[in-house]
Amino acid sequence: MTTNPEIRPEAARAPTSGIVDVMSYARGRPGLIPLFVGEGDLPTPPFIMEAAHRALLAGETFYTYQRGIPELRAAIAAYLGRLYRTDVDPERIYVTVGGMHAAQIAIRIVAGTGDEVLIPTPSWPNFDGAVTVTGATPVSVPMQAGPDGWHLDLDRLASLVTPRTRAMVINSPANPTGWTAGREDLVAMLDLARRHGIWIIADEIYGRFTHDGPEGGLAPSFRDVMAEDDRIMFVQTFSKNWAMTGWRIGWLEAPVRLGPVIENLVQYSTSGVTSFIQRAAVTAIEEGEPFVEGQIARARQGRAIVCDGLRATNVVDLPAPPGAFYAFFRVEGRTDTTRLARDLIDTAQVGLAPGTAFGGGGEAHLRLCFLRDPVQLAEAVARLGRVLPGLAGAAPA
Amino acid sequence: MTTNPEIRPEAARAPTSGIVDVMSYARGRPGLIPLFVGEGDLPTPPFIMEAAHRALLAGETFYTYQRGIPELRAAIAAYLGRLYRTDVDPERIYVTVGGMHAAQIAIRIVAGTGDEVLIPTPSWPNFDGAVTVTGATPVSVPMQAGPDGWHLDLDRLASLVTPRTRAMVINSPANPTGWTAGREDLVAMLDLARRHGIWIIADEIYGRFTHDGPEGGLAPSFRDVMAEDDRIMFVQTFSKNWAMTGWRIGWLEAPVRLGPVIENLVQYSTSGVTSFIQRAAVTAIEEGEPFVEGQIARARQGRAIVCDGLRATNVVDLPAPPGAFYAFFRVEGRTDTTRLARDLIDTAQVGLAPGTAFGGGGEAHLRLCFLRDPVQLAEAVARLGRVLPGLAGAAPA
Repeated sequence: MTTNPEIRPEAARAPTSGIVDVMSYARGRPGLIPLFVGEGDLPTPPFIMEAAHRALLAGETFYTYQRGIPELRAAIAAYLGRLYRTDVDPERIYVTVGGMHAAQIAIRIVAGTGDEVLIPTPSWPNFDGAVTVTGATPVSVPMQAGPDGWHLDLDRLASLVTPRTRAMVINSPANPTGWTAGREDLVAMLDLARRHGIWIIADEIYGRFTHDGPEGGLAPSFRDVMAEDDRIMFVQTFSKNWAMTGWRIGWLEAPVRLGPVIENLVQYSTSGVTSFIQRAAVTAIEEGEPFVEGQIARARQGRAIVCDGLRATNVVDLPAPPGAFYAFFRVEGRTDTTRLARDLIDTAQVGLAPGTAFGGGGEAHLRLCFLRDPVQLAEAVARLGRVLPGLAGAAPA
Repeated sequence: MTTNPEIRPEAARAPTSGIVDVMSYARGRPGLIPLFVGEGDLPTPPFIMEAAHRALLAGETFYTYQRGIPELRAAIAAYLGRLYRTDVDPERIYVTVGGMHAAQIAIRIVAGTGDEVLIPTPSWPNFDGAVTVTGATPVSVPMQAGPDGWHLDLDRLASLVTPRTRAMVINSPANPTGWTAGREDLVAMLDLARRHGIWIIADEIYGRFTHDGPEGGLAPSFRDVMAEDDRIMFVQTFSKNWAMTGWRIGWLEAPVRLGPVIENLVQYSTSGVTSFIQRAAVTAIEEGEPFVEGQIARARQGRAIVCDGLRATNVVDLPAPPGAFYAFFRVEGRTDTTRLARDLIDTAQVGLAPGTAFGGGGEAHLRLCFLRDPVQLAEAVARLGRVLPGLAGAAPA
């Protein structure tokens, strides 16, 4: 077995999601309020469902374009153009099986055995996992939690670039911290990437969930500061804006020169994206603006309920996150969040994700998704308020 | 650029599909009869569409189990059990985004840089592509075309096993050749794999498309000769039996001990399979038998039309393929099939796939899919009959 191991080390090293672990612990508990997962509580709106049904009835059940149907690629490019007041070439857009598939392809293009990929942490664990599966090494860039929220030290980021570095994954607004890069941060990171000839994999999927400016605002984007041929790939998804997590559709935006490579990587991973789901995605983009605006308003309202409620416990330290839709917070005196998350399932019937799931620097935190029904959120916060003071500082050393 | 190449060599090496090339040449030609792709001409039956629609309306639009919903895993296990008269543990079943995703995961588990994977050829090109993307080397095991069809030399297969060999991909009945392993072949291949401690990746997706025995027969399967803990993974798909190519749903069957690894590889590639499509797949399996039987009968009828018609041209040599639903044939005097496929698009308005797409040993052949409307197939064969005698032997040296 040592000379011929049964499975490849890269596959064996793929880490298990710490979120899934706690969800399994909670499964089947009546009355549990599930706030562990990164999705809202609204199902996909009916007009999007009906678009899928119409496409089915029209017989769109065959193999389709590896890059995505032209109508969807055009619709995505036009949407980005409207949102960011710029021109986006549809040839830069490749439809994928959700944002994860886009990330898998982007990482496969830039990283493999012997390479390093920088990832500011705490972070969505799937970037680390997908880098590991290629044989490359994810390198954590720990962020700092301060009284005014999370902070990324750009000098520290720069100091971790080595000759093996091939890419940095920049998620802003960030899951789980809510950290949102300023324009000057983006300029500095792009400059760093250009100087070293490394890629930026930009995850701006929460770009419209920004809570401190005027409604309808956007977080700063690499799009605002880049040139079209810069080494930047954007991973994107229909999951969050349009409540389509379970549909598995997203896109990768990349320089046109990568088109043939991306097309081949789609072919040898999933061979394309469900044809009638692509039609539904066209409808989501073209008719979904009122729904998206409702989602953003719901997240803002949720943030207020959760931040106010948790702070009132006097055992939680929680600066309001400027972006995304998560509260990521510490409970005084507690660092063992896997146990704490289980305790909260048992005593408060509220499901939170333990910080251990998000790596380097977030272990002592809990993540709560607030893109939910405000009444349910208020109930969850009330339940937490009843038990948290008793649980604070309660863990054995 | 030489010290820091823009993209990884594995990604750059992913080959372009030779089928897609010819399809692009043919796109937009009115009246073209498209027989290049491995799919039938019937859309998915309405009762399966309606099951998807019902699940949508019931709000099944959220993230779901990484391994697949329990109901579908149970339905697949029960289906395999009925078909092969054996017990199949649902814990062996992992739902994937089509057979390609199953193949990607299976290959990722067993192969990476420095490894070799044996693939009898001509073959479906995506195995070669997916092996290449991991950094491993696909090793062709050329099959021989004889007067009674294609033949795999098991001694040759055995002679190509090296200390680097990690797996062999066995597709039976085979795309594109129709080659179908006998039970004694399977025993010999399993014995070879056991002796060397290597994996078998079994693609038996055409197992019900077997044309020479009684109707309802099955091709011999590794399932008939294996032990449950043998190093065999089966890749499977809903695409062919249930006319669901565009839905992108299939499954991987693997030893239970691989469960956690497979779950992680699903998480870091697609994060699961569309929830409401899984419900449709349950319905396909539970209510789809009459449709599948119709598909098989359609393929048998198609085979007869195509084989009789092509032989009547007197320039085609075509033993009837015992399995799958492809005619894979040579045209006398012609070896340049990429050009020949284009000529046939231009002169006969019939789309065939060039043998160059299928690698080692099949370059001089053309592939024709006969899972189609018999009237359309008869027309295609008539058109080919009019032009093939003139094209035979017509290529410049």
